[in-house]
Amino acid sequence: MSAAAFDFRAWSSAHLATVEAALSDWVGADAPADLGQAMRYAVLDGGKRLRPLLVRAAQEAVQGLPAAGLRAACSVELIHAYSLVHDDMPCMDNDVLRRGKPTVHVAYGEASALLAGDALQALAFELLTPDDGSVPDAMQAVLCRYLARAAGSEGMAGGQAIDLASVGKSLDEVQLRRMHQLKTGALLQGSVLMGAACGQPSPQAWQALKDYGGALGLAFQVVDDILDVVADSATLGKTAGKDAAQDKPTYVSLLGLDRSRAYAGELLDQAMTALQASGLPDTVALAALAHMVVNRSN
Amino acid sequence: MSAAAFDFRAWSSAHLATVEAALSDWVGADAPADLGQAMRYAVLDGGKRLRPLLVRAAQEAVQGLPAAGLRAACSVELIHAYSLVHDDMPCMDNDVLRRGKPTVHVAYGEASALLAGDALQALAFELLTPDDGSVPDAMQAVLCRYLARAAGSEGMAGGQAIDLASVGKSLDEVQLRRMHQLKTGALLQGSVLMGAACGQPSPQAWQALKDYGGALGLAFQVVDDILDVVADSATLGKTAGKDAAQDKPTYVSLLGLDRSRAYAGELLDQAMTALQASGLPDTVALAALAHMVVNRSN
Repeated sequence: MSAAAFDFRAWSSAHLATVEAALSDWVGADAPADLGQAMRYAVLDGGKRLRPLLVRAAQEAVQGLPAAGLRAACSVELIHAYSLVHDDMPCMDNDVLRRGKPTVHVAYGEASALLAGDALQALAFELLTPDDGSVPDAMQAVLCRYLARAAGSEGMAGGQAIDLASVGKSLDEVQLRRMHQLKTGALLQGSVLMGAACGQPSPQAWQALKDYGGALGLAFQVVDDILDVVADSATLGKTAGKDAAQDKPTYVSLLGLDRSRAYAGELLDQAMTALQASGLPDTVALAALAHMVVNRSN
Repeated sequence: MSAAAFDFRAWSSAHLATVEAALSDWVGADAPADLGQAMRYAVLDGGKRLRPLLVRAAQEAVQGLPAAGLRAACSVELIHAYSLVHDDMPCMDNDVLRRGKPTVHVAYGEASALLAGDALQALAFELLTPDDGSVPDAMQAVLCRYLARAAGSEGMAGGQAIDLASVGKSLDEVQLRRMHQLKTGALLQGSVLMGAACGQPSPQAWQALKDYGGALGLAFQVVDDILDVVADSATLGKTAGKDAAQDKPTYVSLLGLDRSRAYAGELLDQAMTALQASGLPDTVALAALAHMVVNRSN
């Protein structure tokens, strides 16, 4: 890793600006009725954009195609955004606050929120399959493959189903890890893999990036559980203390606060070890993102 | 067209059996908790499977790759099935009966219905992107492209948004056609195009199949509007008279019953003319499907 002169703030600002502009161009521009507005409300001007940054960092690490990386970055963010819209609905978490704003169903009604989420998922795959020659068709197929797996019943949606079924139940650590690997980890790891699929990494680098993504995905959730306990709603931009209020199993309820923090540190070490094993010359942005995930305050 | 010896019943039975078996293998088998059950309930043992048959007929007409045709056939049915699950939910049409069975949210709860629909959409794209070498990657990309466009905000989801916004309003014929082209037509036409994308049709054949799919898609909706008025719930397998009860604009409310029937006949003629213009040697199954759409009783 050539970390010497790396300025993470400048790197992420540049990529965030590109992603934000692309999302603004691509999301809901031609959608009829107020569907487009609800889609844009759900996606624009909000969120940490962690998943897009992971895509771009991995794409750069493998010297992948930038046009593919940008599309993949936007597509994972659309899947993340749609999942929040549906997750906030009354029949799921029934949450009214997200990123400091009223949730989509509060602002636009439940039916529009449902449709906007559905349309965002379709748009994610549409962004990956342009017919303008900017991304080779074979690469498009691989990107769609990883996104579909990360989003579906053996990924994010499956994790949400386990989450739903586990309210009020006690899970052991294996079960809790499985739930989070699917619910949050699959799309975070998928972001890394999609970035890698924008280039042609060696099998060794591919496996290392997969390991990095797995450790980072789990670390993200452990820290999320910690923040739900220690932060307030204003800092989080969403309702704090929600897990305990809903009697949901978390790492904190299972391991306690101190052991949860130690576990997050171990996972960060695993992620860094994987990057060192990748053989890739420049993984400094990926390293910085792993630190950001573990040390974030919201 | 070599219609002489064509046995539509045998043709469709064979394809329906293949599609049904593939869906049973692929849907929800490894999904956690009761998500898999809800997905299977939404998809298996129900429906006319019109979209899968359109895919297979178009794939055969262009002498396309059967393995791709089967996956595309299942994927369009998953998109259709997920749209019904979400459409039936209380915040949308609030319907309790579908294909003669309780709707998914009645049987499994609203949260599971929401997640099952989301997971079915992801699975549609997962089916199109196998990594077993059975479908060339470049073909996978084209199939994902057409499916995403047909399903998204400028296709099915967009049409549903217009539908939602038009309750209690009067639409003119141009507006009504636009709504239906998106809501129902886009996925029906998309089915034909995806079947065509399993082969390498000439530009002339491609355009003809596109025209055929457009006419058939509109005919389907005109007949749907007619059946909502003239059929009973038992025959339809869903609640009849729903459009009028919800004060939704329909072809019957706009044109009256006789002119709606005449219009369906005109659209059938257009579809047949397109097939003749395709230059394809065998379009007999596509022709039979167009007749089935216009002459169906449910």
